Amino acid sequence: MGLLVVGSLGLDTVATPFDRVEDALGGSATYISLASSYFTGPVYLVGIVGDDFPKKYIALLENHNIDLEGLQIVENGRTFRWSGKYHYDLNVRDTLLTELNVFETFNPIIPDKFKKAKFVCLGNIDPVLQLQVLDQMESPHFVVCDTMNYWIEGKKDDLLKLLKRVNVLIINDSEARLLTNEPNLIKAFRTIRKMGPEILIIKKGEHGALLFTDEVIFSAPAYPMEMINDPTGAGDSFAGGFIGYLHKTQDLSPENMKCAVIYGSAMASFCVEKFSTKGLEELQYLRVQDRFREFLNLSRFNEKE
Amino acid sequence: MGLLVVGSLGLDTVATPFDRVEDALGGSATYISLASSYFTGPVYLVGIVGDDFPKKYIALLENHNIDLEGLQIVENGRTFRWSGKYHYDLNVRDTLLTELNVFETFNPIIPDKFKKAKFVCLGNIDPVLQLQVLDQMESPHFVVCDTMNYWIEGKKDDLLKLLKRVNVLIINDSEARLLTNEPNLIKAFRTIRKMGPEILIIKKGEHGALLFTDEVIFSAPAYPMEMINDPTGAGDSFAGGFIGYLHKTQDLSPENMKCAVIYGSAMASFCVEKFSTKGLEELQYLRVQDRFREFLNLSRFNEKE
Repeated sequence: MGLLVVGSLGLDTVATPFDRVEDALGGSATYISLASSYFTGPVYLVGIVGDDFPKKYIALLENHNIDLEGLQIVENGRTFRWSGKYHYDLNVRDTLLTELNVFETFNPIIPDKFKKAKFVCLGNIDPVLQLQVLDQMESPHFVVCDTMNYWIEGKKDDLLKLLKRVNVLIINDSEARLLTNEPNLIKAFRTIRKMGPEILIIKKGEHGALLFTDEVIFSAPAYPMEMINDPTGAGDSFAGGFIGYLHKTQDLSPENMKCAVIYGSAMASFCVEKFSTKGLEELQYLRVQDRFREFLNLSRFNEKE
Repeated sequence: MGLLVVGSLGLDTVATPFDRVEDALGGSATYISLASSYFTGPVYLVGIVGDDFPKKYIALLENHNIDLEGLQIVENGRTFRWSGKYHYDLNVRDTLLTELNVFETFNPIIPDKFKKAKFVCLGNIDPVLQLQVLDQMESPHFVVCDTMNYWIEGKKDDLLKLLKRVNVLIINDSEARLLTNEPNLIKAFRTIRKMGPEILIIKKGEHGALLFTDEVIFSAPAYPMEMINDPTGAGDSFAGGFIGYLHKTQDLSPENMKCAVIYGSAMASFCVEKFSTKGLEELQYLRVQDRFREFLNLSRFNEKE
């Protein structure tokens, strides 16, 4: 059974102090699918593009065992476009342009074959669309969801409706604080726990990630990098590595969840090494395992007292 | 042989959104000494206060096996005072007042008995004074040093002179970036390495700490806390736990250094639980070990792939 991924596909124009790319492959569903494809397959992708979406990107996705039956290609439609500029401090970025285009009227339709999927990853799109996806699924039993401040502020009611049906919420620390009105992250988890998700993952960028469940708090380090070329898609790559590893292992224990957080962090580190999706295009699973081991070395210390 | 600690002793007036204390025990040397006293002893303290410094604080320090032969008590002098106010986000604080008082003319004199100490912790004071301390030592072989943006900006030449004679520099991430002009922390370590210290520890507050040596990078998590009452002294408590554990074990290997970083983090977490030095006053070593184990649980994950 495949892993269902829903989200955006887009063409990104990104500038950093080091370089710039134009109309490069982007979008939450793209990063999630590519990252998870190193762990499991097939990935069932649901999304929308215009017929200006380059064939080579279609081929790239297909080469990663990503099933595109759920990809709507709109004739004479224009693909979603995003443009951003990163500052010297790569934690700061300006959004220069967001063109929804075909996304404006997106109505996610889940092909019959996809409806039986048990693992669902809802990339960061309008919570109303995320709900529409869940409504079409037969009996999903592990739903991971990403969102952002835009929806927390603008569509809170729909988001709260969605969260009741979500197992894992992945957001960053400022989004967690915004959603709960609670600066303390332990208390924020307790509030989010009551909203629905049993599991909260807080992404902290260069400071790593935190996993909260009823049983454990786990702190994952960030991979120390000398050169970050393009932070775009790091969070989505994290989500893809996380759910991809869980789909592969079919083990939802807290201990395995920790490993999934590390694999998510590993995929995020590969993502930011190169522009656009380049860092996720030609990996070997051996390299992913090597990086997992580097995370182990980075955080391990002896038990002596 | 004792562990030499030099720094400030002061009376702090601190307000947070939750409470307020007036003329409470404070100062870098105070926190470092108290934190390290749980691991080793005696601690040789060098500092200065006025005769307004309460006798009960003298007694408290003495009860922790802190040797006060190097504490100058100035007759008719007024003790260093600091006052600060923390915001609802405890990472943000305003300094309301800094009265140097007796510190203005401080000339650190190391008692003969202290001069043979091998382990030295230079708390955050003027680098000129830190240099004067080192000049008086016979053959220190492990020197840990803290500093801050104020000295990096105002006394860089003296600081650079000092760093040539320091083994471990402990600073926060913004100070590391300021000192090196380098936003990337791996590159910042390489620059600082050339300034002298073989080891760099970067404190990141609620995001934990990073240890850099030529051999390893180690990422220590922060202890997740529901209630932080007073962040004052956290960095000094970290330094005290770090050097105290190393002085106890006399093992400067990278592996043991990692444990020392965790013990430093543990002492910082005890410090911020209560106002002023209260969190460091009545600990049992068993509680310190328990917290060490909690750090282990917080960051440990399985090696399976």
